[in-house]
Amino acid sequence: MHKQDLDTPFVLVDLDAVELNIRTMQDVADRHGVSLRPHAKTHKMSEIARMQIEAGAAGITVAKLGEAEVMVAAGISDILIAYPIVGLPKIERLAKLLPFARITAAVDSEAGALALAQAGALAGVPVRVRIEVDSGFGRVGVGSAEEALKLARLVANHPWLRLDGLMTFAGQSYDATSREELARTAEREAGTVAAIAARLAAEGLPVLAVSAGSTPSAPYVAGMPGITEIRPGTYVFGDLMQVKLGAHALDRCALTVKTTVVSRPASDRAVIDAGTKVFSSDGEDSPIGTGRGYVPGRPGITLEWMTEEHGMLRLSPEEQGLAIGDTLEFVPNHCCAVVNLADRLAAVRGTRVEHVWEVSARGKVH
Amino acid sequence: MHKQDLDTPFVLVDLDAVELNIRTMQDVADRHGVSLRPHAKTHKMSEIARMQIEAGAAGITVAKLGEAEVMVAAGISDILIAYPIVGLPKIERLAKLLPFARITAAVDSEAGALALAQAGALAGVPVRVRIEVDSGFGRVGVGSAEEALKLARLVANHPWLRLDGLMTFAGQSYDATSREELARTAEREAGTVAAIAARLAAEGLPVLAVSAGSTPSAPYVAGMPGITEIRPGTYVFGDLMQVKLGAHALDRCALTVKTTVVSRPASDRAVIDAGTKVFSSDGEDSPIGTGRGYVPGRPGITLEWMTEEHGMLRLSPEEQGLAIGDTLEFVPNHCCAVVNLADRLAAVRGTRVEHVWEVSARGKVH
Repeated sequence: MHKQDLDTPFVLVDLDAVELNIRTMQDVADRHGVSLRPHAKTHKMSEIARMQIEAGAAGITVAKLGEAEVMVAAGISDILIAYPIVGLPKIERLAKLLPFARITAAVDSEAGALALAQAGALAGVPVRVRIEVDSGFGRVGVGSAEEALKLARLVANHPWLRLDGLMTFAGQSYDATSREELARTAEREAGTVAAIAARLAAEGLPVLAVSAGSTPSAPYVAGMPGITEIRPGTYVFGDLMQVKLGAHALDRCALTVKTTVVSRPASDRAVIDAGTKVFSSDGEDSPIGTGRGYVPGRPGITLEWMTEEHGMLRLSPEEQGLAIGDTLEFVPNHCCAVVNLADRLAAVRGTRVEHVWEVSARGKVH
Repeated sequence: MHKQDLDTPFVLVDLDAVELNIRTMQDVADRHGVSLRPHAKTHKMSEIARMQIEAGAAGITVAKLGEAEVMVAAGISDILIAYPIVGLPKIERLAKLLPFARITAAVDSEAGALALAQAGALAGVPVRVRIEVDSGFGRVGVGSAEEALKLARLVANHPWLRLDGLMTFAGQSYDATSREELARTAEREAGTVAAIAARLAAEGLPVLAVSAGSTPSAPYVAGMPGITEIRPGTYVFGDLMQVKLGAHALDRCALTVKTTVVSRPASDRAVIDAGTKVFSSDGEDSPIGTGRGYVPGRPGITLEWMTEEHGMLRLSPEEQGLAIGDTLEFVPNHCCAVVNLADRLAAVRGTRVEHVWEVSARGKVH
């Protein structure tokens, strides 16, 4: 099957670019002697998780338990669930997974740690635990070394828990406006978690993993003292948000949305068959087009605004030959959100469709 | 099953409120002697479409062909596809539907009309056509009476097409900041399409349907001269966007997202297990909370910001007793986007779960 045979809208993944992106980030990790544990929230499918592991990744990261279930069922055997697991239904589901894979879970509260212990007891398998630390993002995570120490002691002394280490996510790196700011953010990210790791180690608490680094900050964090693991996700595809941050080259963005022009209401306006139900509303002002979607090599096509099923294009004079039925491939602003809206992705090499993959962990919010 | 047995995040629909919302809009249509053809993009499921039809709706509206396929398979027999259908794969799919339901399709171009005719010829069933007119939104639709006339003549004279009338969507009504502005917008919406309908009728062209009106504008448009049909969608649930517009009362919002507190990183901060993967990023500044999500009766809980899986709450002093494991029900900003992200909805009456419905037309972007 060829690309042109796919009806639109369709999400395409360029395998050459994916392989290059996977190789490049693995090289960053290898060069600095840290583990790479990619966040699977970007691709949400075992096929690409396997490509990452075959290239050298130590395992994967997921957000939700439902994503872990899909990955374990597909044979992925080392998974960090980087999210607080709360409530009996989820604890029982976690207990069912524990015998089948090396599962590590994040916690930032005593209640969360005791819930994990309950899962361990149910399964008869102690749960590996990472203490989540806030390094300035203000989302989840303990806010001080004292809290981390207290929680680490509880975990280390509990028969159904095993202290594995620390993790942090510094989402503020997505707001950096220059490489210098990104480097400073990464320094705070790595510095916070490494300092707490040193405190834990000084108290004789086992700290195997000290994990930090998202796509923009990972190349900085990987080389910083005390860090043992990076967890970038978006790098596998790249998107306009990462291009804006200088973290990904536009010509190495692997994920695009193939669309068709369905209306030409005026000479300088065209409408494509994809709106926020395909691209999501994750948009922002950007020097690359409007930051909502961009057709590489065709700066005269501007994706101005969207409704749920419509994408409104403004056309420069040289693009006004665009006709109903013509197709266009857009690099989206936020690839993770696009994948979460797609039931299937087409994996292409050149113009050939090698696979049509189900997004098997799509929409797993539980 | 009771509401408290549903693991979170879960989208809940209150059946009493849905029934009241359906009744209220049907009364608007009946009072003015116009047809109601609700847009099914809001609920994306045949169960609620059937409730609307049983209450008196003439049929339903959908955006995409894939939604029409789901609805026809579920026995819904009168459907307007309010979207340009472009490309051979879709024309062939349309041809397969035509024998099984009364399908009407929107067009705004000669190419679109000829494509529909192709579907009619394939099926041996002429396709009912509505000319889509732009009444100021600047999305799709012909921009002048002359263009509408030209297209209407082509349709009326084609053996595989049947001219059914006109339709318009005035999305600018969602930006109205007062009832006066909404009334003015509605007047332009109805006036534009009614004037073109009169031109067509004067030329002897058949105009059975003159269709306008979304949730905010429908109650205005329904009473305006020349209008025969309204097509609101969001009214069935309501959301913060409609509350802000004065088009829906907060206490009649039927759709909520049940969430659980999973982290309490500081006394005035809590994190829930739902972010943009549940609520979408369709947000806007609003006098109701932040316009991202709101817990009725608890103004001290502010959904400040979200990432994909996390919702960050700011808590006023009286809400700081909130603990990990507590549940909260949020009215979302944009219910259509929330439904498109959910595999299932729980239909509840009081605290009892009467049904768990699959969102069978979810994600149908083709």
